[in-house]
Amino acid sequence: MATIAILGVDGYTGWPLTCHLLRRGDDVLGVDTGFRRHEARPSVTPIVSMTGRETAASGFDGTLTFLAGDVTARDTIQHVLDHEPDAIVNLAQIPSAPYSMRSMRAAWHTQRNNVAGALALMWALREHPERVPVVQLATMGEYGVYPDGVPIPEGFLADGRPAPKSPGSFYHASKAQATLNTRFAAETWGLPVTEVYQGIVYGLTDPDDERLLTRFDVDATWGTVLNRFTAQAVAGEPLTVYGRGGQKRAMLPLTDCIRCITLLLDNPPDDGYRAVNQFQGAHRIIDLATYISGETGVEIEQLDNPRAEDDSYHSYDPERETLDTLGYEPSEGIEETVARTLDVVERYAGRIPTDALRPDVEWR
Amino acid sequence: MATIAILGVDGYTGWPLTCHLLRRGDDVLGVDTGFRRHEARPSVTPIVSMTGRETAASGFDGTLTFLAGDVTARDTIQHVLDHEPDAIVNLAQIPSAPYSMRSMRAAWHTQRNNVAGALALMWALREHPERVPVVQLATMGEYGVYPDGVPIPEGFLADGRPAPKSPGSFYHASKAQATLNTRFAAETWGLPVTEVYQGIVYGLTDPDDERLLTRFDVDATWGTVLNRFTAQAVAGEPLTVYGRGGQKRAMLPLTDCIRCITLLLDNPPDDGYRAVNQFQGAHRIIDLATYISGETGVEIEQLDNPRAEDDSYHSYDPERETLDTLGYEPSEGIEETVARTLDVVERYAGRIPTDALRPDVEWR
Repeated sequence: MATIAILGVDGYTGWPLTCHLLRRGDDVLGVDTGFRRHEARPSVTPIVSMTGRETAASGFDGTLTFLAGDVTARDTIQHVLDHEPDAIVNLAQIPSAPYSMRSMRAAWHTQRNNVAGALALMWALREHPERVPVVQLATMGEYGVYPDGVPIPEGFLADGRPAPKSPGSFYHASKAQATLNTRFAAETWGLPVTEVYQGIVYGLTDPDDERLLTRFDVDATWGTVLNRFTAQAVAGEPLTVYGRGGQKRAMLPLTDCIRCITLLLDNPPDDGYRAVNQFQGAHRIIDLATYISGETGVEIEQLDNPRAEDDSYHSYDPERETLDTLGYEPSEGIEETVARTLDVVERYAGRIPTDALRPDVEWR
Repeated sequence: MATIAILGVDGYTGWPLTCHLLRRGDDVLGVDTGFRRHEARPSVTPIVSMTGRETAASGFDGTLTFLAGDVTARDTIQHVLDHEPDAIVNLAQIPSAPYSMRSMRAAWHTQRNNVAGALALMWALREHPERVPVVQLATMGEYGVYPDGVPIPEGFLADGRPAPKSPGSFYHASKAQATLNTRFAAETWGLPVTEVYQGIVYGLTDPDDERLLTRFDVDATWGTVLNRFTAQAVAGEPLTVYGRGGQKRAMLPLTDCIRCITLLLDNPPDDGYRAVNQFQGAHRIIDLATYISGETGVEIEQLDNPRAEDDSYHSYDPERETLDTLGYEPSEGIEETVARTLDVVERYAGRIPTDALRPDVEWR
C-alpha cells in the first residue's frame, strides 16, 4: 500500500481520513502544530493526545508516524518529502471565517498560515525528484454567491479562465489567495495538484474505540453551522440562524469528505492542475434549522446577521463533475448523518460550551 | 491644499508623483523602507538620499515629511494616520516578477510584503474616525491574457462578479491576493478605496534639478521591458525579446501614471470600492523592440523565453472607462517619451549595468 502524508492530521477531517487510510492498510505520516487544541474551546468529543491517537491506531494495518511541525517552515516540508510519501494531503489550514475577522492579527495569522504553507509545499515539490500528487484543500466559499441563474463552475469558466472569486471573509480570501499560487505553480512546474473546493463539512462518525473520535467544534468561531445546530439541539438551546437564513451553501457529511479525498488520492491527475468541487448537495441554512427543529423540538432564533453576506433566498447552483466521473456516490443523506451525530453528541452533552454558541465577532 | 501620504515614496513612480504634488502645493508624508536601494543594482540615474531629496524638494510650495518605515507594521500605519492625511497612495509594494520567481524566500517576501501592507492599511482605516480615500496599486498583470475576442473588464464582469484572474508569477499573484482583501474590506467596511490596475510604466521625466530625478532600473530583475530596451539601445547592446515577442501588454508613460493617480486623488469615490484600469495603450513587445531598433540602429535578439507565458501573437483588449470619464487624455506618445528617456539615459550611459541585462531567473 501507499504512504500518505496528511498535513493537518490532528484536525476535524484530518484525523478520520487518517484512520480510514490506516484501516485499509496505507501508512500515514501525519503533521500538525496542534494550534487548534490550544486556540479553540475544548472539543465536545473527548479527544486524546496525538500520542494517544498513535497508540489507538496501532491496531490498524497501516502505520501512523506523527511529526509535530508547521508546514509553513521549509524544514518541516523537507522532512515530509524525505519520508518519500506517495501522495500528500494538505489540510493544514486555519479554517475559521469568524476568527479571521476578529482582528488584524488574526486575519494575517490566517492568511500567512494558509498561503505560506501551500507555497512552501509547491516550491519544495518543484525541487523534489519525484512528482508527488498533492490534494490541496480549498473551499467552495472562494466563489461567493453567483448571480441568479449563473452556475458555479469547477474552478474554471468554459473559456478556460479561472472562475471569478468573491470571498466573504479574510479566511475565505486566504483560500483564494492560496489557490492563485497552487494553480500557477502546478501549471508552470507540471506538478500533479488537485485543488479541492470543498463545501461545509458536518457530522461525526462513531468509531467503536472512543480514542478514534475526531474533534467536534460547535462554538460560534470554530464550529460550522450544522455542527453548531446539533449541539444547540442537544443542549436545548435555540438554533441560531444569521439573518433571514436564505443563505444556500454547498455541504457534505464527514463520511463523504473522507470518501472523496480517498477517491482523489486513488485517481491522481496526470502532471498538472485539477480543480474539483467537492460537496454532496446545497442547502439553505433556514431549511437545515427547520429540519433539526422539527426532529428535536428546539426553537429557531434568527439573529441580526453578524456577517456581511446576502441572507435572502438567493440562487446557488454549483457544478460537480470530476468526483462523479471518478464514481462518487453520496454515502448517506443529511437525515442519517444528523441522527448519528445527535446520538454521539448526546453522550457528551455536558461538554457543550453553551456560553460560546452565539456570535461575538461582527464583520462590519 | 491637501496632505497626501505616499507609501513607497522612494520608488520609481512614488518620487515623481511626490514632486508633482509638492509642486502644486500639496503636503506629502512619504514612507519607505529603502528596500529597493539595497536590493537592486544602483539606479542608472544618480539618485540622492531621502535626506537629499527632502532638501531638493524644499523649494516647492508643499512640504515633504519623510518617515522611514515598513507599512506591514501596524505602528507605521498608525503613525501615518496620526498625521491626518486627506488621502493615501499605497505604492509600497515589491514590483518584480523575476524577483518573486527566484526562490521560495523571495516569493514569500514579495507576497508577505504586498499582501500584509494593504491588509494593515485596511484594518487601520476601519478603526480610524475619518474615511480617508486610498489609492491602492494593483496591476493589469493580475488578469493575465484573456481568450481571443474577450475584453479585459475594469475589475468586474458585467454581471458584477470580480474579473477572472490568471497571474503569471508569484509577484502578479501577490497583487491579485491583495486585491481580494482590499475589495472585501472596502465593500464590507465602506472604505473609499480605488484599486488601480496599472499597466507597465516606462520612461523618465527630465527635471531641471538632477536631485529630483527618480530611480531608473534596467536590469533583468527590476527593470521593466521598455526601460531595459532604452538602456540596451544606449549601451549598444541587443534588445532582448523573450520568445516570439507577440506578448501584448497594457502600458503607460511615467508622466501619465502621475497624471492618472492625481486625477484619482482629486476625484475620490463615494464610500466603497472602485476598480480602475490605468494604461495608455496596449503594445506588443516585438513592436516596441522594432521601433527602438529602428530609431537607434541596435539589433534585436530573441531569447528563449525565461517566463511561462504565451509569446505568440495573441489578442489583448483591456477596457478603460473610469479615467476617461474623469477627463484623462494621454499626455504624450511612446515616441516622445522614448526620445526624452534616451536623452536622459545617454547622460548616464556609464552607469548602465551591462552585465545584468539578460534574464537569470527561469520560471520553469
